[in-house]
Amino acid sequence: MNSPTTTQAIASSAGALARYQQVRALSVRLADRLSAEDCQVQSMTQASPVKWHLAHTTWFFETFVLAEHEPEFSVYDERYPFLFNSYYNACGDRHRRDHRGLVTRPGLGEVLAYRQVVDERIERLVRDGGLPRHALRVFETGLHHEQQHQELAFTDLKHAFWSNPLEPAYTDTVPESGRETSLGWLELDEGVYEIGHAGDGFAYDNESPRHRVFIEPCTIADRLVTNGEFQRFIDDGGYRRSELWLDDGWRWVQNSCAERPIYWGGNGSEFTLAGRRALDPHAPVCSVGFFEADAYARWAGARLPTEAEWEAAFAPGWTEADETRGVDPNGPLHPRCASESSPCYQAFGVCWQWTGSAYRPYPGYRPPTGALGEYNGKFMNGCYSLRGGSCLTPPAHNRLSYRNFFAPDARWQMTSIRLCKDRHA
Amino acid sequence: MNSPTTTQAIASSAGALARYQQVRALSVRLADRLSAEDCQVQSMTQASPVKWHLAHTTWFFETFVLAEHEPEFSVYDERYPFLFNSYYNACGDRHRRDHRGLVTRPGLGEVLAYRQVVDERIERLVRDGGLPRHALRVFETGLHHEQQHQELAFTDLKHAFWSNPLEPAYTDTVPESGRETSLGWLELDEGVYEIGHAGDGFAYDNESPRHRVFIEPCTIADRLVTNGEFQRFIDDGGYRRSELWLDDGWRWVQNSCAERPIYWGGNGSEFTLAGRRALDPHAPVCSVGFFEADAYARWAGARLPTEAEWEAAFAPGWTEADETRGVDPNGPLHPRCASESSPCYQAFGVCWQWTGSAYRPYPGYRPPTGALGEYNGKFMNGCYSLRGGSCLTPPAHNRLSYRNFFAPDARWQMTSIRLCKDRHA
Amino acid sequence: MNSPTTTQAIASSAGALARYQQVRALSVRLADRLSAEDCQVQSMTQASPVKWHLAHTTWFFETFVLAEHEPEFSVYDERYPFLFNSYYNACGDRHRRDHRGLVTRPGLGEVLAYRQVVDERIERLVRDGGLPRHALRVFETGLHHEQQHQELAFTDLKHAFWSNPLEPAYTDTVPESGRETSLGWLELDEGVYEIGHAGDGFAYDNESPRHRVFIEPCTIADRLVTNGEFQRFIDDGGYRRSELWLDDGWRWVQNSCAERPIYWGGNGSEFTLAGRRALDPHAPVCSVGFFEADAYARWAGARLPTEAEWEAAFAPGWTEADETRGVDPNGPLHPRCASESSPCYQAFGVCWQWTGSAYRPYPGYRPPTGALGEYNGKFMNGCYSLRGGSCLTPPAHNRLSYRNFFAPDARWQMTSIRLCKDRHA
Amino acid sequence: MNSPTTTQAIASSAGALARYQQVRALSVRLADRLSAEDCQVQSMTQASPVKWHLAHTTWFFETFVLAEHEPEFSVYDERYPFLFNSYYNACGDRHRRDHRGLVTRPGLGEVLAYRQVVDERIERLVRDGGLPRHALRVFETGLHHEQQHQELAFTDLKHAFWSNPLEPAYTDTVPESGRETSLGWLELDEGVYEIGHAGDGFAYDNESPRHRVFIEPCTIADRLVTNGEFQRFIDDGGYRRSELWLDDGWRWVQNSCAERPIYWGGNGSEFTLAGRRALDPHAPVCSVGFFEADAYARWAGARLPTEAEWEAAFAPGWTEADETRGVDPNGPLHPRCASESSPCYQAFGVCWQWTGSAYRPYPGYRPPTGALGEYNGKFMNGCYSLRGGSCLTPPAHNRLSYRNFFAPDARWQMTSIRLCKDRHA
Repeated sequence: MNSPTTTQAIASSAGALARYQQVRALSVRLADRLSAEDCQVQSMTQASPVKWHLAHTTWFFETFVLAEHEPEFSVYDERYPFLFNSYYNACGDRHRRDHRGLVTRPGLGEVLAYRQVVDERIERLVRDGGLPRHALRVFETGLHHEQQHQELAFTDLKHAFWSNPLEPAYTDTVPESGRETSLGWLELDEGVYEIGHAGDGFAYDNESPRHRVFIEPCTIADRLVTNGEFQRFIDDGGYRRSELWLDDGWRWVQNSCAERPIYWGGNGSEFTLAGRRALDPHAPVCSVGFFEADAYARWAGARLPTEAEWEAAFAPGWTEADETRGVDPNGPLHPRCASESSPCYQAFGVCWQWTGSAYRPYPGYRPPTGALGEYNGKFMNGCYSLRGGSCLTPPAHNRLSYRNFFAPDARWQMTSIRLCKDRHA
Repeated sequence: MNSPTTTQAIASSAGALARYQQVRALSVRLADRLSAEDCQVQSMTQASPVKWHLAHTTWFFETFVLAEHEPEFSVYDERYPFLFNSYYNACGDRHRRDHRGLVTRPGLGEVLAYRQVVDERIERLVRDGGLPRHALRVFETGLHHEQQHQELAFTDLKHAFWSNPLEPAYTDTVPESGRETSLGWLELDEGVYEIGHAGDGFAYDNESPRHRVFIEPCTIADRLVTNGEFQRFIDDGGYRRSELWLDDGWRWVQNSCAERPIYWGGNGSEFTLAGRRALDPHAPVCSVGFFEADAYARWAGARLPTEAEWEAAFAPGWTEADETRGVDPNGPLHPRCASESSPCYQAFGVCWQWTGSAYRPYPGYRPPTGALGEYNGKFMNGCYSLRGGSCLTPPAHNRLSYRNFFAPDARWQMTSIRLCKDRHA
Repeated sequence: MNSPTTTQAIASSAGALARYQQVRALSVRLADRLSAEDCQVQSMTQASPVKWHLAHTTWFFETFVLAEHEPEFSVYDERYPFLFNSYYNACGDRHRRDHRGLVTRPGLGEVLAYRQVVDERIERLVRDGGLPRHALRVFETGLHHEQQHQELAFTDLKHAFWSNPLEPAYTDTVPESGRETSLGWLELDEGVYEIGHAGDGFAYDNESPRHRVFIEPCTIADRLVTNGEFQRFIDDGGYRRSELWLDDGWRWVQNSCAERPIYWGGNGSEFTLAGRRALDPHAPVCSVGFFEADAYARWAGARLPTEAEWEAAFAPGWTEADETRGVDPNGPLHPRCASESSPCYQAFGVCWQWTGSAYRPYPGYRPPTGALGEYNGKFMNGCYSLRGGSCLTPPAHNRLSYRNFFAPDARWQMTSIRLCKDRHA
Repeated sequence: MNSPTTTQAIASSAGALARYQQVRALSVRLADRLSAEDCQVQSMTQASPVKWHLAHTTWFFETFVLAEHEPEFSVYDERYPFLFNSYYNACGDRHRRDHRGLVTRPGLGEVLAYRQVVDERIERLVRDGGLPRHALRVFETGLHHEQQHQELAFTDLKHAFWSNPLEPAYTDTVPESGRETSLGWLELDEGVYEIGHAGDGFAYDNESPRHRVFIEPCTIADRLVTNGEFQRFIDDGGYRRSELWLDDGWRWVQNSCAERPIYWGGNGSEFTLAGRRALDPHAPVCSVGFFEADAYARWAGARLPTEAEWEAAFAPGWTEADETRGVDPNGPLHPRCASESSPCYQAFGVCWQWTGSAYRPYPGYRPPTGALGEYNGKFMNGCYSLRGGSCLTPPAHNRLSYRNFFAPDARWQMTSIRLCKDRHA
């Protein structure tokens, strides 16, 4: 969750409108194959109903764009801001987060109607030139915000389907199987590096300011840990050996009785958006929490990279994606396996990668003023940063400097492990 | 929740079939004006989704009737028993009660299809004479079980709608307003009385055996406590005076910050199945828990009647209802006010009335053998008995000896207060 | 916990003083062999430190006797009422119950000094004739209150010592071993019985008024269930078979992972006030909760007696104890085994016996006015009544009509099981 | 909590012995003015009884020194390792941390006897030359470990005394009052700095390896935030304005109903080891948690320094203390006020200062092998680093590179706030 920096990529109203329509349409398309009931359910406090995602992203445009710039603005439904504000204290009271699944009305149809009206008003506003240049920043934030929620809708839905003993599938497109690939190591030299957002493109506030860090010499794995490798950790007593875990992690193992990644079955299977399938030993291990990633790394005689190491290592391989691309609901919704020819080391768009860095502000960080100042800054406690984006992250939304963050016991996201090692002088 | 006694009212297959069709159709009719989302939601652990009620009552007939008597029985869907068993340990593992709202699939349409197939199979079985005479008992239990769940569907839905900040309404039929009626007292003489189920009609196991109790002289109120009277209790500091409450009740007040009945607003309003409306001061106070009923009675210089006192007092006024009547989803779904000419003192079919009796077995009580032995007996701890049935209880399902039971902090049922006083020699 | 009835046994000031000195001295003697640290500890919320018991019972006399009747009364230490009030809302604010073990100052020595001063003032008041006749009732209540706390001091200390991995012993006097005794059954005829407190002796308010009950024919066991018998229940899967338990009891078993009585070890041992010892198969099973007692009875094809059945059955065997007797801290502090020649069937002074009766008010019950009205009445929810007194109950404090009460999961008291069965006509 | 590095300061056996005797004697002297009850109490899970501190530090020497090096070693009491192991999984099972206050036996006297025997055995071992040179490292760790526990004993005792409604005092020596001092800012230039332990002296493992960091330009306050300044934050609605808090911090405020620092009263008073006293507006604010420190800094338009900034800023002012000095139990046990002439900016030995750095491993960090590997590494989650030592930290135990760490809601330590600001180019 993040808010805007001082730069943005949308230069023209026409471009803005085209991107708006693409992004907004994809959210609806994502829900196409779901029933109203599927869109209603909230399987845990941290997850939200798909219907809520559809409404909340609309509320975002209504509140931060229409209410600011539309002449003779009036709120679509005066009860909606209370229902669909997520966490902005500056925007007034809001509904309990853990009760989002109780809102059966407005129904899915009414929420889609709400989307349509807001879309029309936004489009009219943009076409009529009502969006001043300085407002494009917030407008673009709204699009990135919606893309974030597209990813969350997938992961939240996956958790909800997994919570159903019948384990329904969202898609029947399955990813290609992988092949054994050796693990190589990329060397990173000691020195002062610059990290953080650079250039004119869009970025959230928490990626700034760009600043210098000193990195001691290390090496970084050239691919993610695989299911097969993680299975060897389990077979070696990984979840039963306290010495491999942080103290809080060990307490988590004992309280949760964890024995394997959340979506794994005891029978060599894995629950995916394509239903329960046999584990592919060559696919990246996926949906592990930080505690598990950290314990695995210790077992492997390695550690997790810091944010700075990760960004410095993969900066050379980064190229901006085609701006318009989202995630295809018909494509395989599961991380690709590594291949010997992979250009960028599964760095981007495969799985989010836990870093060993606590999610804290960069030196000189300033949250934006106004309600959007709550987008990122206030969450800078108790979480770890993740890097790289996943197969569920809209490619046009991904960035080299993107800082995602989750609590160390969060396991329902597309999160994996990349190893790192110190190099001795 | 209760299971059958040794007698039953259904004497013939034809009669059985007619009642089956009436009862089953009413459950579906109840859901007619609800969306699939409305039928999906579970607002707290103790409540269940309407869809679950529709499926669970069907599972009951499939499991306890079809599986026992249908030739070449096969289960409709092998995954359903796990989903739709409520609490019968003898019937195998079951889904977590607090996760019923997470089951988006099967959807409402699939559950209605399940109902239809089971209905056809039941009807064929009965018509073909496949239901032996001794099985009629379980069959009739299934119908009463379904009627219980019709009542629960109403109360659970009311709680779900109330949990939605938008407070939607189920119906727009509102009850007639009441008029001031004086409070009279019925005298009950000391002596040995018989209570418990008598005769050939249907009753649950917990109403038996009929047995003798000694009652000391007392008087019982000839109507329920009204909203207006309860408001005076509140105005007199009722929720702030520890001396009026049981110790556990006082702790409940402090922990829950309760200040008024659950569905009351701070502004003289009450949430009903017809939405939020102005409180009628002459209507019975409704949806209060035992702790509140007990505190009110203490404040009023009275107490709650025991089960025996209640049954002895109202036995003369009881007449069996027309066997076929259910609750009309179009009628007012709220308790009627007392009227001077009321024949039975708001005893039956207005509100359940908390008694001061802990819900415990009658002397000589034996639960039935088999899975249905779990229907009632195992819940005989920590609850209080309620008597009389409510406006949401299908009239054909109500009985003089009916023992309902809820925990002392349960407030979402149609529960009210009747006062009682000791008489001094 | 109980408060006084309208009658009392102490007729003269001289008698009052003698009993006062006996009872008060015994409390101190009980603590003689304990260290200040032993007297400080509180092992769970429901238990209290011995030091607190010593101070609270003193506060009782200071507050309800001295403050009312002493000329020129002034409080001993103005901070003590806050510390040593247990639960009397009418006596003002009080310290958190679960924090009693945090009060290291006043130390044990200061509390003993407090006792001595209050004793001297009480003695002077009584000797000087300052205690009016009508005040003797409260005075006597204070003595019974102190005797209750002597029993609680023993059971709370036992729990604290058991909570220490070193399991220290309070005494080294061990009870005599028992011998096999057959189980016989006493018949109780149907009819109207009177129960509740009768006569001029002291009793708590909750034992009144004496009233009539109708009892259906039944039989009651002539001794308590033994350790050996309870072991057979365990061996037969008693703690693993859901059908033997109330639903709440089964949840308790699963949450607490209970496999045997609280003080039993896995190795045929039992923790007692004389330390850990081999289980005597002929001794009464002890320190079981209601859930366990109820499950055992179901397994044995029986049930627990009601309060009325218990009192009616053992009324003939009851004789008042010598008024002065307390529990000897040097004697064996563990229940005696049954013997063939036992006169009163282990009914009195062996173990408290769980009844199947919820602890609720008798018909016509009125709590006393004033703060002592909180002694009993407000606890009449969620508990079961126990009868008979235990080996830790001061004999002079025991009574036929005595109603003790604890929650169904309470296991640290001296509680055992007596079976009962319905008799068929 | 930390474990040893590869270097140590104790070069000779004679020096070792002298320091051992000084440190060990001080622990006992600290308890001199406490009752056995005072030493018994545990007021919350994170705190431990003084008696436990006395025993645990002794167990440390017995386990890590005597058991390794004493010829014919036998354990003092085979039950003690279970009781007095704190968290070393490698040393076997251990007693529940939250139950330390339940261990009344061994009593204080027995624990002091245990200390004496272990002291004699250690002294004999050292004198007899039985401590090999490579073992001096663990030996010295034991002394630093004991000094850490001396500080904890003070803070835990303070919390226990504060938990007692009587609020007893440990000492009657009060600190001198302060005077208004202006707040100045120290400039820190951008550049690569080295931080972490350097040289031959003792340090814990978590202070190593020494490594390079890049620091962007900033300024650091030349004294701590005062009570008077913090009062202005409160007066300005500090605890009621969500925008000043991290999201987790705001939740903490709401759940804990915090309105001021833990030891402050509503009446301008502060609880100290000298009892409750009027707040000195010029004394450093003390016993605030990270959430409060972070919110204060945001309110003040500043932020907390990182560990690197803190260490780089105060490295020039650091001078090693006389090796033997502990905390005088007779001295004022409260932070000194700033004075204009203060040489080192209240950097050392006044209050621990929250940094904005999550407590995580330094690049290249390796925990020691063996049980002592659990000393620090496993706690590197969810905490923030604190720097500088407090008035309760034994001066001989303090270090420039010392990394203390606590969870963000921990408030019972001697923790204060130092501000920092970014400098713009």
